Amino acid sequence: MNDSEQAAHIPLEGEVGVVEYQDFISRERFQFESGGSISELCLRYETYGHLNAAKDNAILLCHALTGNHHAAGVYNLNERKQGWWNFMVGPGKPIDTTQYFVICSNVLGGCSGSTGPESINPVTGKRYNLDFPKLTVGDMVNAQVLLIDHLGIDTLHSVIGGSMGGMQTLQWAIAYPERVGSYIALACCARHTAQTIAFNDTGRQAIISDPEWNGGDYPDGQQPGDGLAVARMMAHITYLSDTGMEAKFGRKRRNADAEEHFDVEFEVESYLRYQGQAFVSRFDANTYLYLTKALDRFDLHGPNGTLDETFKVVSASGLMVGFTSDWLYPPQGNREVVEALLRLGKDATYAELAMDAGHDSFLLRAPKLDNLIRGFLAR
Amino acid sequence: MNDSEQAAHIPLEGEVGVVEYQDFISRERFQFESGGSISELCLRYETYGHLNAAKDNAILLCHALTGNHHAAGVYNLNERKQGWWNFMVGPGKPIDTTQYFVICSNVLGGCSGSTGPESINPVTGKRYNLDFPKLTVGDMVNAQVLLIDHLGIDTLHSVIGGSMGGMQTLQWAIAYPERVGSYIALACCARHTAQTIAFNDTGRQAIISDPEWNGGDYPDGQQPGDGLAVARMMAHITYLSDTGMEAKFGRKRRNADAEEHFDVEFEVESYLRYQGQAFVSRFDANTYLYLTKALDRFDLHGPNGTLDETFKVVSASGLMVGFTSDWLYPPQGNREVVEALLRLGKDATYAELAMDAGHDSFLLRAPKLDNLIRGFLAR
Repeated sequence: MNDSEQAAHIPLEGEVGVVEYQDFISRERFQFESGGSISELCLRYETYGHLNAAKDNAILLCHALTGNHHAAGVYNLNERKQGWWNFMVGPGKPIDTTQYFVICSNVLGGCSGSTGPESINPVTGKRYNLDFPKLTVGDMVNAQVLLIDHLGIDTLHSVIGGSMGGMQTLQWAIAYPERVGSYIALACCARHTAQTIAFNDTGRQAIISDPEWNGGDYPDGQQPGDGLAVARMMAHITYLSDTGMEAKFGRKRRNADAEEHFDVEFEVESYLRYQGQAFVSRFDANTYLYLTKALDRFDLHGPNGTLDETFKVVSASGLMVGFTSDWLYPPQGNREVVEALLRLGKDATYAELAMDAGHDSFLLRAPKLDNLIRGFLAR
Repeated sequence: MNDSEQAAHIPLEGEVGVVEYQDFISRERFQFESGGSISELCLRYETYGHLNAAKDNAILLCHALTGNHHAAGVYNLNERKQGWWNFMVGPGKPIDTTQYFVICSNVLGGCSGSTGPESINPVTGKRYNLDFPKLTVGDMVNAQVLLIDHLGIDTLHSVIGGSMGGMQTLQWAIAYPERVGSYIALACCARHTAQTIAFNDTGRQAIISDPEWNGGDYPDGQQPGDGLAVARMMAHITYLSDTGMEAKFGRKRRNADAEEHFDVEFEVESYLRYQGQAFVSRFDANTYLYLTKALDRFDLHGPNGTLDETFKVVSASGLMVGFTSDWLYPPQGNREVVEALLRLGKDATYAELAMDAGHDSFLLRAPKLDNLIRGFLAR
C-alpha cells in the first residue's frame, strides 16, 4: 500500500468529525394526539453523510429518553465528548455515512433545542411548563414527519432507535408504513410493565415533591434540581445491570469510613450522585415528567389485548434486538414484538445479545452489535 | 369429635390474640461497634407463649428494616391489623406458642419504641437525630443480648429472621455461637451488592435533599415526609417482583385519562403513592438513614474475601431460605452463605421457594414456607 492509497482510506475509517446542528421551524399549528395544539414548533437536528439524488438513502435515528439530536461527531475539535452513537455512525461504521444520509432530531417535547415544556410559548411570551399539551410517542413521530417532508424525503431507507427511540421506530413502522423501508428497534417493548410505570412515577414524585417544582411553574435556571437528581439516580440504576454494577463498583470504598454521617462512602454512591448532578445541568425537570409519561402511556396492544391488530399494517422489514442483562425492557418484551410480527407473516427477525451492561447495552460499542446492524442494513 | 374435644382444640388452632408490648430499659452505658456510646437504652419487645422452667424454649424473631416488635397478635380486639408474622406465630402455627416462648424486639436504632435517632438523648434532653452513634447490625444484636440476659435466657432455642432480620440472625450465630441452638435466615445475604447500595443511597438522597430534613436536625412531627415517601416508593418496588406487580396491577387505570398532568393515572401509581404516605406516618426519616446504612455496611466476608473465616465459629444448625423472585436479595446471596457453611462442615441446609412475591415473599403466608419452618424447628 503506498501513501496515496493509505490517504484515500482515511475518510472511510474515520469519524463524522465536526458537526453542526440545524433548527427546522414549522409555522403550521401542530395538533397533538391528546387534542391540544401549539402554534409552531422547532425540531433541532443533525445530519451526517449526503442525501443522494434519488433521496432514498436516508436513515432516521431516534434517540432515547435523555438523549438528543447529537448522535455523532463533535461540535469542535477540542471537544472530547462525541455524539451518543458515534461508534455506530460514520464513514465505514455500521451506519455508514459514505452510503447513508443519517438524520437525528431532538424529539418534540425535548429540552435540547426542540419545542418542549421549557420552550417559550410564542402566544404568552412565557415558558410553556405545564401548558405544554399532553405528549405521546405518536406526537414525536408526527413531528419528525414534518422534518422528513422538509428535507424532501419520501421514504426512509431505515428508522433505527433504542429504548424510547425503539418505541418511535415501531411507531414509524405502524403509523407510516409506506414511508419506512426497514426498521431496527433495540432494547424496546410494546408497552411498559407495572414495575416500569412504578419506577417512572417514583421519579416523577421526586420531582413534584421538590418545593422548587412549584406546580411546574418554575423559571429558567430555577428548576427542581434535587428532585430531578434523585429521579435520575434511581433511573440510572435501572439502565445498568446488577452484574455490570458489581463488576464495576462492587463494594469499593471511596472513603474507608466516611467521617460525616451519610457522606459518600462507597464508589457506587459517588458515581450515582455525580450522575444525578450532571443530569440536572443538562435536562429539564418538566421535560422529564412529560417524556416518562409519554412512555408509560405508550401501548401497542390493540383493544383485543394483542399486538396483531396494531402490527398488521406494517410493511417494512424489521429487526428487534434484546439484551440479556436488560431488566428495564427485558428480552421478553422485545421477543413479544417479533413474535407478533412473525405470526402476521411479516418480514421480521430477532437477535438477543449477551451483554452485561443492562438496558444501556445498545449505547455501548460491541463488535456483535456493530455486525448485527451492519448486516441487517446490507440486506 | 364431641363438643368438649372441639373446644379443647380451639387454643391450638387459634391466635396469640391480644398482646401488649413491654419496655426493657438498660441503664448501663451501651458501646457501639463504631466507638460511640449512649448512656442508656430501651428495647421495646413483645413475647408470645411461656418460657419453660429449663428456659430452653425461647425463639428470638428479628424483624426487617421497617418492621418492629409487633410480630403477632393484635393490641385490642377491634383492631384488624395483626403483627407482621401473625400467620407464622401462634398456638399450633409453625412457630408454635404452645411449645415455644417467642420474643421479638424493635431493633436498637429503630423508631417503634426502642432507642434510636428520634429518641430523646437523656444527656441533652433533645432528640438524638444525627448525634446517635453510627449503627451496625452487630450493635442491634449486642443490644438484643442484654434483653435475653434480662429475661434470664442463656441459650436461644432458635433465632429467626428475614431480610435485615436474617442478617441479625446470621450475626447471632457468628457472634454468640454458644447461645444459639439453631437459626433460620430468610431472603438474606452476606453483604449488599453495588446495586443494593445504589438503591439505598438514592433513597437516602431523597431524604437528605428534602429541605425539611434540615441537616438531620428536625423536631418531632416535622420530618422530611416528601423525601421519605419517595425513598419508600422506590424501596417498595424492590420488595416486589416484576411478575408479581404485573399480575396485581398490570396497566390497570385508576383514572382513564387523568385530567391534571401527573395525577394518578395507573393503579400501580395509586398503590405506591399510598405506600409512601402511609410509611411517613409510621417511620422516622433519620432512622431510615441509619438502618439502611447499617445494612450497606454489613459484610460477613473476612479480610481474605471469603465467608469461611467468619463462619468457622458457628456451631448452631442453620436453614437458609431463598425466594426465586427476590431480586433485592436474590437466591444466589442465600446460597453463597449455605455453601460456605457446608464447605466448613457445618450443619446447614438451604431451600429455594418458587414464589412470585419477590423479596417480601417471606412475609406472605404460603403452605410450603409454613411447612419448612415447622419441619426445621421439629428436628
